[in-house]
Amino acid sequence: MGQTFKAAVAMPNGTIEIQNFQTPEPKPDAGLLKVAVTGVCGSDWMFFQDFPKIQGPAILGHETVGYVQEVGAIAGPKWGVKEGDLVALEEYLPCGHCDFCRSGDFRLCNATDWRLGGPRYGATGLNRGSGLWGGFAQYQELHMNTVFHKVPAGLEPKYAALALPMSNGIEWTYLHGGAGPGQTVLIQGPGQQGLSCVVAAREAGVDKIIVTGLNTPSDKKRLAMAKHLGASHTVAIGDEDLLESVAEITGGQMADLVIDCASGGPASVISAIQLARKKGRVILGGIKRQKVPQFDSDMIIAKFLTVKGMRGHSYESVELALQLIAGNRHNVRSMSTHMFGLDQTEYAIRSLVGEGAEDAIHMTIDPWK
Amino acid sequence: MGQTFKAAVAMPNGTIEIQNFQTPEPKPDAGLLKVAVTGVCGSDWMFFQDFPKIQGPAILGHETVGYVQEVGAIAGPKWGVKEGDLVALEEYLPCGHCDFCRSGDFRLCNATDWRLGGPRYGATGLNRGSGLWGGFAQYQELHMNTVFHKVPAGLEPKYAALALPMSNGIEWTYLHGGAGPGQTVLIQGPGQQGLSCVVAAREAGVDKIIVTGLNTPSDKKRLAMAKHLGASHTVAIGDEDLLESVAEITGGQMADLVIDCASGGPASVISAIQLARKKGRVILGGIKRQKVPQFDSDMIIAKFLTVKGMRGHSYESVELALQLIAGNRHNVRSMSTHMFGLDQTEYAIRSLVGEGAEDAIHMTIDPWK
Amino acid sequence: MGQTFKAAVAMPNGTIEIQNFQTPEPKPDAGLLKVAVTGVCGSDWMFFQDFPKIQGPAILGHETVGYVQEVGAIAGPKWGVKEGDLVALEEYLPCGHCDFCRSGDFRLCNATDWRLGGPRYGATGLNRGSGLWGGFAQYQELHMNTVFHKVPAGLEPKYAALALPMSNGIEWTYLHGGAGPGQTVLIQGPGQQGLSCVVAAREAGVDKIIVTGLNTPSDKKRLAMAKHLGASHTVAIGDEDLLESVAEITGGQMADLVIDCASGGPASVISAIQLARKKGRVILGGIKRQKVPQFDSDMIIAKFLTVKGMRGHSYESVELALQLIAGNRHNVRSMSTHMFGLDQTEYAIRSLVGEGAEDAIHMTIDPWK
Amino acid sequence: MGQTFKAAVAMPNGTIEIQNFQTPEPKPDAGLLKVAVTGVCGSDWMFFQDFPKIQGPAILGHETVGYVQEVGAIAGPKWGVKEGDLVALEEYLPCGHCDFCRSGDFRLCNATDWRLGGPRYGATGLNRGSGLWGGFAQYQELHMNTVFHKVPAGLEPKYAALALPMSNGIEWTYLHGGAGPGQTVLIQGPGQQGLSCVVAAREAGVDKIIVTGLNTPSDKKRLAMAKHLGASHTVAIGDEDLLESVAEITGGQMADLVIDCASGGPASVISAIQLARKKGRVILGGIKRQKVPQFDSDMIIAKFLTVKGMRGHSYESVELALQLIAGNRHNVRSMSTHMFGLDQTEYAIRSLVGEGAEDAIHMTIDPWK
Repeated sequence: MGQTFKAAVAMPNGTIEIQNFQTPEPKPDAGLLKVAVTGVCGSDWMFFQDFPKIQGPAILGHETVGYVQEVGAIAGPKWGVKEGDLVALEEYLPCGHCDFCRSGDFRLCNATDWRLGGPRYGATGLNRGSGLWGGFAQYQELHMNTVFHKVPAGLEPKYAALALPMSNGIEWTYLHGGAGPGQTVLIQGPGQQGLSCVVAAREAGVDKIIVTGLNTPSDKKRLAMAKHLGASHTVAIGDEDLLESVAEITGGQMADLVIDCASGGPASVISAIQLARKKGRVILGGIKRQKVPQFDSDMIIAKFLTVKGMRGHSYESVELALQLIAGNRHNVRSMSTHMFGLDQTEYAIRSLVGEGAEDAIHMTIDPWK
Repeated sequence: MGQTFKAAVAMPNGTIEIQNFQTPEPKPDAGLLKVAVTGVCGSDWMFFQDFPKIQGPAILGHETVGYVQEVGAIAGPKWGVKEGDLVALEEYLPCGHCDFCRSGDFRLCNATDWRLGGPRYGATGLNRGSGLWGGFAQYQELHMNTVFHKVPAGLEPKYAALALPMSNGIEWTYLHGGAGPGQTVLIQGPGQQGLSCVVAAREAGVDKIIVTGLNTPSDKKRLAMAKHLGASHTVAIGDEDLLESVAEITGGQMADLVIDCASGGPASVISAIQLARKKGRVILGGIKRQKVPQFDSDMIIAKFLTVKGMRGHSYESVELALQLIAGNRHNVRSMSTHMFGLDQTEYAIRSLVGEGAEDAIHMTIDPWK
Repeated sequence: MGQTFKAAVAMPNGTIEIQNFQTPEPKPDAGLLKVAVTGVCGSDWMFFQDFPKIQGPAILGHETVGYVQEVGAIAGPKWGVKEGDLVALEEYLPCGHCDFCRSGDFRLCNATDWRLGGPRYGATGLNRGSGLWGGFAQYQELHMNTVFHKVPAGLEPKYAALALPMSNGIEWTYLHGGAGPGQTVLIQGPGQQGLSCVVAAREAGVDKIIVTGLNTPSDKKRLAMAKHLGASHTVAIGDEDLLESVAEITGGQMADLVIDCASGGPASVISAIQLARKKGRVILGGIKRQKVPQFDSDMIIAKFLTVKGMRGHSYESVELALQLIAGNRHNVRSMSTHMFGLDQTEYAIRSLVGEGAEDAIHMTIDPWK
Repeated sequence: MGQTFKAAVAMPNGTIEIQNFQTPEPKPDAGLLKVAVTGVCGSDWMFFQDFPKIQGPAILGHETVGYVQEVGAIAGPKWGVKEGDLVALEEYLPCGHCDFCRSGDFRLCNATDWRLGGPRYGATGLNRGSGLWGGFAQYQELHMNTVFHKVPAGLEPKYAALALPMSNGIEWTYLHGGAGPGQTVLIQGPGQQGLSCVVAAREAGVDKIIVTGLNTPSDKKRLAMAKHLGASHTVAIGDEDLLESVAEITGGQMADLVIDCASGGPASVISAIQLARKKGRVILGGIKRQKVPQFDSDMIIAKFLTVKGMRGHSYESVELALQLIAGNRHNVRSMSTHMFGLDQTEYAIRSLVGEGAEDAIHMTIDPWK
C-alpha cells in the first residue's frame, strides 16, 4: 500500500492519541482489513486503564467489523475469505494445535490470553509484530490465526458489531445455561451483557425473564430497556427486597437459571446462589476483581446446584448472534445506542464508567467519521 | 406378631439406650423388615447430636440391610418385593408424585427432608407413626414409600451395607462427575466418602487418582487405605505443599475433576477451585457448616469451571454400588472395618469423631449380636 | 355411590355401544374421576380395531381430563391430589419400583405395556378389575398408580385434553430432539403429532420449520394449518420434489433435525435419513407396521447422524404442554377442532381414518353432552 | 535435500510398485516427515481397489508415525512441533475455518473427504501438489493442515501406529457410545475395529463385554483374541443362536450398547437393533456398501433406542489412544501382529481380505526394512 492511516493509540499516561501509521507490507501469512466499525466492549475500560502501563502504547478495540482488503497467499486458504468480504472478527488469535483448539474450545487456548503474552486483537502493544492489531483504527492487519465470521448479507456493520456481546448472551443463556421453554431465567446486572442475555432468553422461548439492577437512575433506564427487549419482570434492588420479589414472581420456586452479569462487587455471587431453585443452574459471567466474603458453599450442596464460570464465546455462538441480529428479532438492534468517530474513542471508553455519554448500551467507533 | 424386639434409642440427653418394642400390627400399606445389619453413616453423628433434642427420642440408622418379613396387601405391588427377600433400603421416603419424584430425582423431594418434617429412615421420632423407622434395631417397619434394592445373591449383608456410601462415590465420581479413562481425579478427604470415590474412580478407568488429607496419624492411615483401594498418589497436607505436589504429579495440568469430600472447614472449598484444571469440574460433597471467607469466584470464571453441589444418591447409583460390591473389585470390601452389637451403637457412632474405635472406615451394627 | 353412569364400550364386533355401569365402591387404594372430556388419540383407531377382539369389550379413551371425585385413604398421599381438583391423566399405570420408574422413565415400565398384560387407561378390558379404566365414559375409576397433572387455573378441559399430543411434540422436538434457536427443523406428516411438533419448534425458538405432507386435499389443509401454527415452509410431496425443495429452502444444508411423524408407510423413514444434514438428528415417531425395504444404513454413518426412536411422553413434557396451552401461544388451541357427545364416540374414532368428520385435528368426547 | 527415497505406489492396474522420488524442496508452509512405520488400515483395501483407477497412481498409507525432519517457517507455529519430534498423524487435512473445524469436529470437514476432492494422507494422487502425501514411503511431505499427535516418550512407533484404530474404539465405545461401569456392551465383528472396542470397553470399566463373529476358523481365532484382550463372552454365530445366547448371557436384558463393526453385509444392522435392550444405544461403525432389506424401524421406536452413525475419530480420542497404548493396558499391544518391509506393502494389504498373511490383526509397514 505505502499509504498512511489513522489509529487511536492508548498511551501509558491514560489518554488516547490519534496517530498515523503506514499500511503494512503484504505478507503471505497475513492480510489487511479496512475497518468499518469497531464496538466498545465493557472490558475496554480495563484494557485502557491497565494495558499501556504494562506493555506500552497500543491500539485497542476488538469488536471489529470490516472489509477484507488483502489476503496473503498462504493465509487465504486457512481463512476461507476473499477480498471484499464483510467480516466480523473474534478477538482471539488461537494457536490452532493445542487440545483446546483441536476440540473447539479455542477461547481457552493459552495463546489467546494476553496476560500469558499471546497476541490478541485490541490487546497487543505497538512494539509487537506490526503492532496494527487493534480495531480503533482505519486499517488492521490480519494475523494468520484470525477467526472470521462472514456478516450476513444486508446487515449494517454497526449492528454486526453487536455480535460479540450478543454471542456471550447466547453462550451463557442457552448454549451453556440450558435456558428453554417453560423456564424462569433471572439475570443480574442490566448492562450490555445482561441485556444480551435477555435477548437470548427470549430467543430460546424462556417463560419468565427477570432482570435485576440497582435503584439508581442509570440502572432504572437499563431495566426499562430490559423490558423493551422482552424481560417479563424487573427488580430494582433497594426499591424492592430482592429475594422476596423473586419469590413472589416465581410462586416461591425461584429461578431455574441465574446468570450473574453484574460486576459491581461480590454481593451478586451470593444472591445468585440464593435466587436459584433446587436443582437450578448458576452462570457466573461478571468478573468481580475481589473475593467474596462469607460465601455459603453448603447452599450449593443443599440445593444441588450447578455453577459454571463462563469465559468468552464459542464460534457457534457468534454465528448464532449474527443470524439473530440479521433477523432483527426482539428489538436486539436497539442495544446499539451510540456511534462515535475515531477522535471520540477516549470519550466512548469513558462512557463505560459514567464519564462520557449517558445511557450508552453498545457503542461503536466508525474510524472514517 | 405380638412379640417384642430390641432397638437402640437416641435420647435427648445425648446417650443411646436399648429399649424393647412391640412388633407393629400388620397394615395393608406397610410391612416389616428383620434387620440383618445397618451401617453407620458419617451423618449419624449429626443426627445423634441434634435430632433427639429437637424431635425427641428416635431410633437412628439408615444404611439398613435386612429380610422382608411382612408385606402389606396394598404395599406389595408398589414395592415389587416378597417375603424372604434380602434387601438394602434407601433412607428416603419420597412422596412419589412431585416433579422430582416423577423425573427420577426423588432424593430432592421435599418429603425426604427431615428438616421439612418428612419421615425418613433413621431420622424420625418415636412419636411419629409407629416410630419404628430406624435401622439400629432388630425390626423396622416398612413405610409405603420405601425405596428397595435387592441384594445380589451371595453378597453378605455387612458388605451390602456399604451400598449407600459407595453409591455416593459412584454418583459424585462418574455419574455426575464425569470421571473416565485418561483423566486425573483428585479427591479431598480420605474418609468413608472419599475412599468410596477412589473405588468409583478405579471402576471408571481413571488414569491418575490423587487423594489428599491431613498429616495426622489418623489421616495417614486413611491415605494408606486409599492406596490399597487403588489411588495412584496421596498427599498429606503439611508434610507437602498441596498445590506444588499436585502440580508436580500432573505435570502442571492439575485435575480434570476435583471432589471435595472433606468436612473439616472451608479451606477445602478454596483448594478445590485451585486444584482444578482449566475447563475442569469440581464436585462439592462435604458439608462445612460454616461460610467460606474470601472465596475467589473469579477463578471459576477464569478457569471455565463447572462446580456441582451433590446431595445423596440416585436409584441407579445404589444399584451400581451393589453390583460393584458383589463383584468385589478394587478391594472395596476392605472398607468394612468394624461390626458391633446393638449395645455398642453409641460407641460406634462416637467412633465417627475419634471417641471410639480407632481406624474405622465403615462400621455396621448387627442387632442380633 | 350406588348410582349408574354411561360409558362407550368398544365391542369385539367392531362397533361401540353405550352401556350403563354402577359407580364402583370406594376402595382405600383407588378413587373416582368425574370425566370432563377425553381426547381422541391417533392410536385409538388401532385400539378400536384390535383390542376388543383380543381382550374383549373395553372402554377406550386415555386423554382424559376430569374432576377428582373420590380419593382413597391410602391412595391420596401417593397422588397429591384432593377432591375437586381438575386433573389431566397420563395413560400409563407404572409399577413404581422398576429401574425405569425409579429413574423417571416410567413410560418404559413393562407394566405400562398392554401387550404385556399391564392395565392401562383406555386399553383394559371390562373383565379386569373394575374394568372402568377408560375415558370415553362419565366416570372413571382411578387406579393406585395413576399419574396426575393438575390443570392450570382457568384452562378449559377441552384444551387441557391437548396435553398428551402436545407433550409428544415437546418431547420429540426439544427435550429429546434438541431443537433450538438458529436451527432448521423438518417435520414429516402434518397430523396431530406433526402439528404439535410445529408448535413445540416455535416454542423453542427454531429458525426454519418445514412441514411435509402429501398433495392430497386433506393434507393440504393440514399444511395450511401448519402455517397457521407457525411453520415457515411447507412442501406438498408430488406437487414438489421433496429433496430438491428442502435443499432450496435450506441453501443445500438440509435439516438439523428431522422428525418423522408420518405413518403411511416406510418411505418417510428413508427420506428422514436423506433430509438430515451432516451431524444432524432424526427422530422416529410414527409407527409404520411394516418393514423398510432397502434401508441405507451407510448414510447414517456417512452423515454422522443420530437417530432416536421415541415412545410416549415424560412427566416433564406433559407439565410443559399444559403450561404452553394455558399460555395460549402459537395458536395452539386451534388444533382443538371438534367436540362430540358420548354417543358419537365411534364417529369420532372413524374420523381418524377419513370415515367421519372432515378436517379433524384434535377431537374430544364430552360424555355429559 | 536433493536426495531420493523409496515409496510404494498403488497403480491403476491393481498392483503396487516401488518407485524412487526426490525429496521435495522445503516450503514455508510445509515440512518433511521421515516415516518410521505406517499401519495398514482396513480401508486400505478399498483405497487399493478403487483409488488409482479413479485418480491415478498414488502412495497409500495413512496411519503414519514418524520423525519430523523439516518444519516450514510459517507452518511451524501452526503445528506446535519441532524437528526431531516423533509424531503420529491423522489422515485428515481439515480446512481449519468451516463450522465443523471451528467446533472440534474437523473429521466432518468437507476438505477431509477425498470423494469431494480434498487432499488426504494416503488418498491423494501423485499428480496433485507434491503427491508425496502417503505413508507407505520413506518420507512424506507434511501439509500445512496436518493434525499432529506427539508420541508419548518411550512408545515404539509400531505400537504408536495402533493409535488410529484404537481411537475409533475409544470414540465409538465410550466417548460417543457412553460405555461405562455396570453396563453390558456387545460388539459385532472381531476385526481390528471390534477388538479396539473390546480394549476401550475394558478401559471404561464395562461389566460384560460380549463379542460376536462367524464360526469360521479365522473369526474363531479373532474371538479368542477378543478374550485375550478382555472380552467376558464370545459368540460364534452358527455354532450358537445369536439372540438366544445373548439373552442367556444377559439374563434376558440384552445389551446397553451394541457396536456394529462388522462389514460382511447388512445382517448385522438388523441384529444390532435386536440385541439392544430397551432404552439402549446402537453404534453403527461398519460400512456395508449395500442396502438393508426389511429393516424394522418400528423396533427403534418400541425399544426407545438411540442409533448413531460413527465416522472417524476426534482429536481427543487419538490422544487417549496414545496414552492407553503407552500404558500398555489390557494387552492392547498384542493387536500389533505383523510388520512388513516396503516391498511387502501389497502382500500386507491383500492380507486384509485373506489373500496374504494369516491371522493378521494390525500390520505395519516399516519402509526402511
